[in-house]
Amino acid sequence: MRPNNRAVAALRPFNVSYGFQPHAEGSVLMSMGQTQVLCAVSVEDHVPPFLLGRGQGWITAEYGMLPRATKSRGRREAVSGISGRSHEIQRLIGRSLRMMVDLRLLGEHTLRVDCDVLNADGGTRCAAITGAALALRAALVRMVEREQLPALPELLPVAAVSAGIVDGQQVLDLEYVEDSAAEVDGNFVMAQDGRWVEIQATAEGRPFPPEAFAALATLAAAGLRDLFSALW
Amino acid sequence: MRPNNRAVAALRPFNVSYGFQPHAEGSVLMSMGQTQVLCAVSVEDHVPPFLLGRGQGWITAEYGMLPRATKSRGRREAVSGISGRSHEIQRLIGRSLRMMVDLRLLGEHTLRVDCDVLNADGGTRCAAITGAALALRAALVRMVEREQLPALPELLPVAAVSAGIVDGQQVLDLEYVEDSAAEVDGNFVMAQDGRWVEIQATAEGRPFPPEAFAALATLAAAGLRDLFSALW
Amino acid sequence: MRPNNRAVAALRPFNVSYGFQPHAEGSVLMSMGQTQVLCAVSVEDHVPPFLLGRGQGWITAEYGMLPRATKSRGRREAVSGISGRSHEIQRLIGRSLRMMVDLRLLGEHTLRVDCDVLNADGGTRCAAITGAALALRAALVRMVEREQLPALPELLPVAAVSAGIVDGQQVLDLEYVEDSAAEVDGNFVMAQDGRWVEIQATAEGRPFPPEAFAALATLAAAGLRDLFSALW
Amino acid sequence: MRPNNRAVAALRPFNVSYGFQPHAEGSVLMSMGQTQVLCAVSVEDHVPPFLLGRGQGWITAEYGMLPRATKSRGRREAVSGISGRSHEIQRLIGRSLRMMVDLRLLGEHTLRVDCDVLNADGGTRCAAITGAALALRAALVRMVEREQLPALPELLPVAAVSAGIVDGQQVLDLEYVEDSAAEVDGNFVMAQDGRWVEIQATAEGRPFPPEAFAALATLAAAGLRDLFSALW
Amino acid sequence: MRPNNRAVAALRPFNVSYGFQPHAEGSVLMSMGQTQVLCAVSVEDHVPPFLLGRGQGWITAEYGMLPRATKSRGRREAVSGISGRSHEIQRLIGRSLRMMVDLRLLGEHTLRVDCDVLNADGGTRCAAITGAALALRAALVRMVEREQLPALPELLPVAAVSAGIVDGQQVLDLEYVEDSAAEVDGNFVMAQDGRWVEIQATAEGRPFPPEAFAALATLAAAGLRDLFSALW
Amino acid sequence: MRPNNRAVAALRPFNVSYGFQPHAEGSVLMSMGQTQVLCAVSVEDHVPPFLLGRGQGWITAEYGMLPRATKSRGRREAVSGISGRSHEIQRLIGRSLRMMVDLRLLGEHTLRVDCDVLNADGGTRCAAITGAALALRAALVRMVEREQLPALPELLPVAAVSAGIVDGQQVLDLEYVEDSAAEVDGNFVMAQDGRWVEIQATAEGRPFPPEAFAALATLAAAGLRDLFSALW
Repeated sequence: MRPNNRAVAALRPFNVSYGFQPHAEGSVLMSMGQTQVLCAVSVEDHVPPFLLGRGQGWITAEYGMLPRATKSRGRREAVSGISGRSHEIQRLIGRSLRMMVDLRLLGEHTLRVDCDVLNADGGTRCAAITGAALALRAALVRMVEREQLPALPELLPVAAVSAGIVDGQQVLDLEYVEDSAAEVDGNFVMAQDGRWVEIQATAEGRPFPPEAFAALATLAAAGLRDLFSALW
Repeated sequence: MRPNNRAVAALRPFNVSYGFQPHAEGSVLMSMGQTQVLCAVSVEDHVPPFLLGRGQGWITAEYGMLPRATKSRGRREAVSGISGRSHEIQRLIGRSLRMMVDLRLLGEHTLRVDCDVLNADGGTRCAAITGAALALRAALVRMVEREQLPALPELLPVAAVSAGIVDGQQVLDLEYVEDSAAEVDGNFVMAQDGRWVEIQATAEGRPFPPEAFAALATLAAAGLRDLFSALW
Repeated sequence: MRPNNRAVAALRPFNVSYGFQPHAEGSVLMSMGQTQVLCAVSVEDHVPPFLLGRGQGWITAEYGMLPRATKSRGRREAVSGISGRSHEIQRLIGRSLRMMVDLRLLGEHTLRVDCDVLNADGGTRCAAITGAALALRAALVRMVEREQLPALPELLPVAAVSAGIVDGQQVLDLEYVEDSAAEVDGNFVMAQDGRWVEIQATAEGRPFPPEAFAALATLAAAGLRDLFSALW
Repeated sequence: MRPNNRAVAALRPFNVSYGFQPHAEGSVLMSMGQTQVLCAVSVEDHVPPFLLGRGQGWITAEYGMLPRATKSRGRREAVSGISGRSHEIQRLIGRSLRMMVDLRLLGEHTLRVDCDVLNADGGTRCAAITGAALALRAALVRMVEREQLPALPELLPVAAVSAGIVDGQQVLDLEYVEDSAAEVDGNFVMAQDGRWVEIQATAEGRPFPPEAFAALATLAAAGLRDLFSALW
Repeated sequence: MRPNNRAVAALRPFNVSYGFQPHAEGSVLMSMGQTQVLCAVSVEDHVPPFLLGRGQGWITAEYGMLPRATKSRGRREAVSGISGRSHEIQRLIGRSLRMMVDLRLLGEHTLRVDCDVLNADGGTRCAAITGAALALRAALVRMVEREQLPALPELLPVAAVSAGIVDGQQVLDLEYVEDSAAEVDGNFVMAQDGRWVEIQATAEGRPFPPEAFAALATLAAAGLRDLFSALW
Repeated sequence: MRPNNRAVAALRPFNVSYGFQPHAEGSVLMSMGQTQVLCAVSVEDHVPPFLLGRGQGWITAEYGMLPRATKSRGRREAVSGISGRSHEIQRLIGRSLRMMVDLRLLGEHTLRVDCDVLNADGGTRCAAITGAALALRAALVRMVEREQLPALPELLPVAAVSAGIVDGQQVLDLEYVEDSAAEVDGNFVMAQDGRWVEIQATAEGRPFPPEAFAALATLAAAGLRDLFSALW
């Protein structure tokens, strides 16, 4: 039924390639099926103004798409400005990553995470979170090596996956053709210990009953456990 | 415990004032406690380019805050541009309102909903959705009067409320002092028939277990039933 | 002859509502007929760069319109940027308010006045000045209470009104249908002692002789005396 | 007393140089003392959207300053955007020029007038209006030659001059050192027949009594009659 | 002497990876050493306004860098706008590609070439041109397959390489550490038949004599012949 | 053959007018035929952030065109932003001027050079460089007079001229009608000692063989020697 005969509860093949951008303190090319997101962490020796003098660090994210990551070319955001969609996604990524570590253990550093979609086939925000979390770990290890941090802080790994209802069927990790036909579209960000970091579920075609939402959450949690076993 | 001794499951006093902006086809000043959002619906005789020739209508929203709606003055968005937060919220409002009516029954009209926060004390996005839904109904009635529509299309009323965890306690309809201290912050958009339109739950301080989320959803649903009985 | 049988030298009914935006140091909702302008004063603990080290304060204004304040919806200025018209008006408001008080008595504070038109029916710039002057007084009183100022500085109250020629007749305080048909359109800003703060008179349809201008100024001055008796 | 021993009621030496920008349909380099404004009229074969199908023309103006027209360099407006001051001035220029001719005699053409200040020494907006009016006449003559117009429409010449109060003394045509010390600053736009097109008088230091304003208007009118005899 | 003991006249190892962005009509990931540029060609069914009705096509380019393509992170161009450097480079790429084919053979299509630098180590503009030329060929082949073109038009292949003077020595294909220390920096765009498409030589430290320029051109031409043999 | 029967190797008549903008530390109105560029140098008492603490100065340029400098009016760059073409040109001017003087002899000053095209008839970037170099000398002399510099630093004069191929013929200093028909268009920036500062040659219609380029360079060098004898 699903493209490539995928089972409803199966993730697409995924792949992590470390060090794709060698200049970055941490860098991962995250692939979920045909979706490819390049995640790069840059360490800055200062914090935003609202945190000055608090003795803590900050984690923030920026998200973009290359113009031809999509089926029909999108306008270059350097020309059109950041889209509303990109704003929404980068805020989600930033919030999710800030749950990974006690910010007081980062010193007065900002970890700025660039998530750039090289190719889009559904689930780019989830792939960005999953990849960025891995790049963040790599950057923290590098900070310890460079003596910017005394020790690696304890990490609560996070990852994300989508789940939705397509043709009345609950499916995991939607690709683009599924996503564009979905009746309900959910993005689930979970910590490795099974607690939720962020839940977003949106009715695309019609409202959904509480039990449908519960089933999606269960489906997503199972997929996320698979991701955590493979990646962390 | 809560400000003004409010019960954990109680809404703030709310008020709807119709016709605040007399030029608009539908206009509501929605108050939830000290939060005041002015919602105005404008009817345009065309649709966005991506809908041309489909014979259907469109509903979209824009959200803004007056500079001194907040405790410390924010920069005027006419100077700084729309913030990422405003982008995120106006997308949520637009998605929620589009669930209210079959867009094919609107003719080739765009209903553009302006939600401007005159005063902010927590829950502005929820007040915007609740108020905009009422303004939308008013605008549709006006369209029938003006013979822009043959008859009032069937409406699925929607409303929204926040629920979160503050000091370990689950509370409904957070005001600003609660919101800024919340460990979990959720926004729940429901249709009158009890189905969900949008669910957003965000860990602010730490991830939350599935049962905490379920309790918040239950709390929100009860509050939303109260709103529907009063407003629709 | 005039809408609502108003006499040529009569003001529209006006109303002042204090404290509409409770976060602001001074806030007034000023109504002149159907025109409603929300004026909010914010006190900042610094001055613009060109005044650094002079030991004086500053007063400045920003002006905007909600999109549906007008008969047909205007583009949101957060999208389109501040219009030329808004620039012109906010400069006028700022100049007028700076005449009210000796800036050396303000300490190194900036009083930033936001004037946002909630509903427009002619005369928005005049209503903004009249309301902002009242909000400014309220903010100065608050500053004394907060010990940001040692004492209330002496104030020279200002107010503004329009006067113009419509259908060959000189009329006071034009509403929109008159304004859009006016041959001459004047805005008069006066101090309570009868001296002028700013005079702007514009030929809309044809140039006007000196004696017509003198008559408009007389008409405006009479209306302004009425405003001062009621408001100050 | 005044710089260069100028009499209080004397204009600075002025000069008009035609055809400075040979590509333009009409072009004038207008000098008032050290102030130099380049005025160029471009004829476009269409009207703005709000005039479509009305069978009339339009006149509009844009105003700018070269970065080093001023004593200390200003930021290039191509970088910083049009300033509020430029917006205010170009609106004034446009309104003034539209009084010169019955727009129904222009056909569906837009005459776009660029006023660029090459050197600023006070009175740039007045020099712009005076020069632009002459450039406009030149452009209309060119339109007749090119058969874009059947005949030269009747023109009501306009010109502008400043008058103000400096050190308690009423003076005509202020240069920069006077302008920056003025207590009252007025800009007067007059038609050749002595009627006013626009009057703007601003208190810079303190409000001014009606009789002071009347004296400034008389002073300006005399200066404008001198300009008209020389230029038209 | 040179990094990695490279000979002065040697290119870095280079690699072409086709189809990196599967949505694009033509796509190449071009590597020159550590420099990686992703080139994607999008075919649009219209031409820019200045070519309307001429019955010909157009080729244009856009260039950008991912924020962390460089040693220290650059601001995202979606936030800061296209930099002057990017403007300069994308104009060069566009001019070079338009030499490859008779534009009258393209029909009324625009081929828009996105060149995005994933990793920067010197020579990004040259790698972009070399890669984009190959992506353009791929896109033209695709257009023939899709019957957007009747036949593959005759192509004049182009490629580009840098040559410069570092420490008094003429070297080919500079990497970043060489580029930042160069006294003269040249970019040479050549057609496969040995004619020049674009020559840019810039004194970075001191002016250069004609014979030094001639030697650089000879060095570049030899390197370009190597590129053509390998790639076309 | 050429317009005005000019010889292929002849410059247009040129003229330099000093002190056109009296506020500027150095100012030149440079004319090459009908092309007129106003060059003004402003001295700032600081350097860009990337040079802080290096004890050296900086030279940078900005380039613009008045809207009606061209045959058909261009959009005002204050409205449309700096064009890609202007970006490219101002970078070229800045690079060229920085070759004129050892920046360590300038103290911590920035010399900002504004080049504004009042009238365009081909070769504006070359006229800008030639004029700006002269304005720069004037500004340095002024800095010595004001004791901002201890002595006039040694200068290496630069100038620029275009050379191209039109109708198969190599011609010097192209005017607009030639430029727009050129097959090859080159801009040559030379120091007075005959060394090159910048070479840019672009195929407009077809690639060009090395010997054609060599001939253009020879033609340009001869023209530049003429400019240097007259101007320096």
